[in-house]
Amino acid sequence: MTQKSFTKGSAFPPLKPGLLRLYSMRFCPYAQRTRLVLEYKNITYETINVNLKDKPEWFFDKNPLGLVPILELDDKIIYESTATCEWLDDVYTQNRLQPTDPYVKAWDRILLEYFGKVTTAFYGFLRKPDEREKLQEEFQKYFEFYNDILAKRGGPLFGGEKPSLIDFFLWPHFERLQILQEIDSRLLLDKSKFPSLAKWQESMLQVPAVKATSFDLETHKRFFQSYLTGNPDYDIGLEE
Amino acid sequence: MTQKSFTKGSAFPPLKPGLLRLYSMRFCPYAQRTRLVLEYKNITYETINVNLKDKPEWFFDKNPLGLVPILELDDKIIYESTATCEWLDDVYTQNRLQPTDPYVKAWDRILLEYFGKVTTAFYGFLRKPDEREKLQEEFQKYFEFYNDILAKRGGPLFGGEKPSLIDFFLWPHFERLQILQEIDSRLLLDKSKFPSLAKWQESMLQVPAVKATSFDLETHKRFFQSYLTGNPDYDIGLEE
Repeated sequence: MTQKSFTKGSAFPPLKPGLLRLYSMRFCPYAQRTRLVLEYKNITYETINVNLKDKPEWFFDKNPLGLVPILELDDKIIYESTATCEWLDDVYTQNRLQPTDPYVKAWDRILLEYFGKVTTAFYGFLRKPDEREKLQEEFQKYFEFYNDILAKRGGPLFGGEKPSLIDFFLWPHFERLQILQEIDSRLLLDKSKFPSLAKWQESMLQVPAVKATSFDLETHKRFFQSYLTGNPDYDIGLEE
Repeated sequence: MTQKSFTKGSAFPPLKPGLLRLYSMRFCPYAQRTRLVLEYKNITYETINVNLKDKPEWFFDKNPLGLVPILELDDKIIYESTATCEWLDDVYTQNRLQPTDPYVKAWDRILLEYFGKVTTAFYGFLRKPDEREKLQEEFQKYFEFYNDILAKRGGPLFGGEKPSLIDFFLWPHFERLQILQEIDSRLLLDKSKFPSLAKWQESMLQVPAVKATSFDLETHKRFFQSYLTGNPDYDIGLEE
């Protein structure tokens, strides 16, 4: 059973020796990257969900930036989603997710850096209705960029038949793209224009780690509606 | 002899088979990251400097974002400074710059991601005099963050006695910090408050790759003054 979010005033839940802990927020796309890797690699861990609007005092001792995801294991602390995922893949060596070919590795890094433009456009679209027309056009360029790389690589995933870390880095915002697609149907992935990217999305939905960490559209919408009012509901669907 | 910047209308300089090419801008801190790695590893390469205000038409074929640094070698293209540096270190295996310990690697990634705050503050300080008071205080926090990690690691560099990639990722903006320090002397690294970071800066200045890629304060100032007027002088100091 999922515990409700830890908030200001919550006592620090003692660490258990040797047990990996994830500090998370259930709807955070960056924390989902880490959750995808944890699931994919079948790593045993516990989750501490945090109220990011009203953070526990001890939370800043874990990460001075006050953000999730954070991993903690005995005397080790790691934050920043990319660092947590790479560390998991380096330390838990089953089902490797990082490419070994230097040129593929370099291009996965380019795909990740470029993704900063996508996330900026994503939040801009949600927050600034005035800019939606312009951002909708930008998204077409981003779709084309990723579609072309997938086509060149052969797909269906960036990692080929199996996911690579970059697939998990990109997925969470693509999962949430449905929210934007409901607002503007031109953001639906046009299969005739972006066949490889559409196929990628379909294939990712079949990956068990994706199924295990996803929320449905209604839940994502409920969360984002609460988020945009400035009073995010971190505990949607949890029992009282 | 350094060639002047290639600009709109410049013919594409033909690639030489097997010769690595760097597309750069002489004063770009991100391209300096790549130049540091190229120098440190004694890699043979040629440089094509680009006028970033008035770009050659063929430049966007190399990188759709139109930014430097870019590496090109035969049919391979790599951009984004972090990707170029890691690729160089992976392919030219002398003088390795990437840590092998997963926890050190994770923390180097954290140091890099955190550095986004420093570069944002750096350009904000230059462009927005109204925000300098606030940004000066922020810088003290950033100095403390990096000082503490260096102290924990033992120094003098983040890589220990020898530089690691993260040293080269951080260096270029620290080199340019002098410009800000002239405007506000509270940005000078106080040795009693930040002894490890001050020692890092001194030690980096002794690294031959740093000496080989640096400009002096006067040249940096001339470039930034031209940059802030909207008409950057990319060819400072080059013969007619």
